[in-house]
Amino acid sequence: MYQINDNYLKLPGSYLFSTIGKKVAAYSAANPDKNIIRLGIGDVTQPIAPSIIAAMHKAVDEMGNAETFHGYAPDLGYEFLRDAIAKNDYQARGCNISADEIFVSDGAKSDSGNIQEIFSTDNRIAVCDPVYPVYVDSNVMAGRTGTYDPKTETWSNVIYMPCTAENHFVPELPKETPDMIYLCLPNNPTGTTLTKGQLQEWVDYANKVGAVIIYDAAYEAYISEDNVAHSIYECKGATTCAIELRSFSKNAGFTGVRLGFTVVPKELKCNDVSLHALWARRHGTKFNGAPYIVQRAGEAVYSEAGKRELKAQVAYYMNNAKTIKNGLKDAGYEVYGGTNAPYIWLKTPNNMTSWEFFDYLLENANVVGTPGSGFGPSGEGYFRLTAFGNYENTVKALERIKAL
Amino acid sequence: MYQINDNYLKLPGSYLFSTIGKKVAAYSAANPDKNIIRLGIGDVTQPIAPSIIAAMHKAVDEMGNAETFHGYAPDLGYEFLRDAIAKNDYQARGCNISADEIFVSDGAKSDSGNIQEIFSTDNRIAVCDPVYPVYVDSNVMAGRTGTYDPKTETWSNVIYMPCTAENHFVPELPKETPDMIYLCLPNNPTGTTLTKGQLQEWVDYANKVGAVIIYDAAYEAYISEDNVAHSIYECKGATTCAIELRSFSKNAGFTGVRLGFTVVPKELKCNDVSLHALWARRHGTKFNGAPYIVQRAGEAVYSEAGKRELKAQVAYYMNNAKTIKNGLKDAGYEVYGGTNAPYIWLKTPNNMTSWEFFDYLLENANVVGTPGSGFGPSGEGYFRLTAFGNYENTVKALERIKAL
Repeated sequence: MYQINDNYLKLPGSYLFSTIGKKVAAYSAANPDKNIIRLGIGDVTQPIAPSIIAAMHKAVDEMGNAETFHGYAPDLGYEFLRDAIAKNDYQARGCNISADEIFVSDGAKSDSGNIQEIFSTDNRIAVCDPVYPVYVDSNVMAGRTGTYDPKTETWSNVIYMPCTAENHFVPELPKETPDMIYLCLPNNPTGTTLTKGQLQEWVDYANKVGAVIIYDAAYEAYISEDNVAHSIYECKGATTCAIELRSFSKNAGFTGVRLGFTVVPKELKCNDVSLHALWARRHGTKFNGAPYIVQRAGEAVYSEAGKRELKAQVAYYMNNAKTIKNGLKDAGYEVYGGTNAPYIWLKTPNNMTSWEFFDYLLENANVVGTPGSGFGPSGEGYFRLTAFGNYENTVKALERIKAL
Repeated sequence: MYQINDNYLKLPGSYLFSTIGKKVAAYSAANPDKNIIRLGIGDVTQPIAPSIIAAMHKAVDEMGNAETFHGYAPDLGYEFLRDAIAKNDYQARGCNISADEIFVSDGAKSDSGNIQEIFSTDNRIAVCDPVYPVYVDSNVMAGRTGTYDPKTETWSNVIYMPCTAENHFVPELPKETPDMIYLCLPNNPTGTTLTKGQLQEWVDYANKVGAVIIYDAAYEAYISEDNVAHSIYECKGATTCAIELRSFSKNAGFTGVRLGFTVVPKELKCNDVSLHALWARRHGTKFNGAPYIVQRAGEAVYSEAGKRELKAQVAYYMNNAKTIKNGLKDAGYEVYGGTNAPYIWLKTPNNMTSWEFFDYLLENANVVGTPGSGFGPSGEGYFRLTAFGNYENTVKALERIKAL
């Protein structure tokens, strides 16, 4: 009889957001008069910008006409989009990345889950702790992580790099040598980031020990400080050790539009094998391109009007971040992030656990956030609030928290 | 140092369509006055139907408005689409499939490449020969296929089931027991299919030996005969042995819109493990939903107007199929398929190889098709023409072939 992939059975239940949902539903049912404000999930709330809407309408019309209809897209994405990405996201920042090193996809979650497929299952991964769960879970499914210890909530064959207030959320170079290093900067969930100089140390380290960096730059549009790199390719030597993942979800509100891309430099080689060729083969075999309409939407992100509109959208969310950050500070909280990222990471007061604070905030302020422990053991004692709500609700939430 | 997934290096170059492209480009450059007609690649040419275009415009507008904006979609797809699929594609045909057994995706190519991930790498696969290359290639990448013999163009650990004129393109039950059986019906590339009774034998066999069937029904909209099943779940016992993959690419022209779905019945279990739960976990971890706009387009496929328009679109292509089939018969060719599928599979004349006939047809009729040997060793001596061109070109191509 056929057998399943046993690695799936090792996965502990992914109950973070479902537990949150159940707790909120139960509270809401018991207190129907309460107005609950959700600053938990990292989904955006602002509508798609007008110039992008216009581009999508135009593309929809093209699909309805035999002369302008588009069937299968080129495997790696349309040239018009790859050119715009290469020019705006890379060449304009001095990064030596060309259009044919860019692979357009249906989003960074797919890419961050799938990228491990081109690597050996014998490789050992290193992740920051706390961390976006997809990096670890996709490696569990592939059989790369060893056994799970429910007591410590860690995997035997994963190198964890704690990021806490004690080390200013700067991961230390690991003592054991990893093969694959996942870095998400600016970081989800902590909202913190590294300086360009600190990132350069990771690039140098990876090149030295022969590790590959999977660099998730989904939040780069929120960077406000000059000494923070928008792309890992701003660091010297990164094209020989790093793959970069990008998303349109947060810079352009595409969580429901679905578009992302991955950069695999042609210089990036494992011995003589080009990772670019491997990812091209994976993309060509197990994916069939992002929708034409969506790729045209992506192109509009880089138009003059699109840039202007999205700058305002990012500013809107970052004003929320400032509102949350300053409000929490005024209320006496220890607060991190929110300067180069749309996430605010707070230390729970009075040594509450993350979940205790979740209940406290829900019951007393009717505000929903995300318990830090849900992102990994070093997230215990922390709590995440997101800036992706609307401004009015964000202000109201902070008024309630300050009144506690 | 990190290592790559060595299985990728075992893959022979996938040169079929690139070789075709090069040959056509070279001929075209040497003969710039010739008007080449392409009946090779399985991409559609007719524009998206008006009611679907209208649904997409409406959805685009919703995305531009804060009150109707849609962020992340539900992991497994919107209820409105899953309900429409369950009702129209299954319950209306007497299949006991419910909306929560349907997983909406970005297309059947992704699903057919990814579905093997939830199974053990120790499983042995069986495929028809000739076959859609993704089934084999995705299993090569996963390390399930053994070693490649370039002489026979086969993998040591794959069970091949020849489908040729000799056995009327009906695969025989394999002598060695497979764990996973890929069936594409109606078939790409041969354009042939099985009767419902013949399919029932496969379902009974799979249940008996403990195999799982991966059933690709991408071409079901082209079925014209009553004794052919549109879904494998029309067969008794299929919900305990079969996963079904469906596409919107060919029934609604969505090759550039990107939408598909997979059905994993809740009854389908490997010992006590639910495959539905495994695929849900895979979907939730490594995918983030199809675009809202595209899911609304999918919903419109099932509207009254959508059904009417798409029936006409399928009839348009099937009229091409008839034109090709009758034209080839008139010209003395031995022809298969084209009755329940948009593909015509012809025996090459005078014992030409598939590639010899490709060159002959390109040079003498300026018509491009696909050499059967590109789909597997048993495709040698056959040739595929597709009905997805426009009618005028199809007629012209057949006139040229008849004049040879």
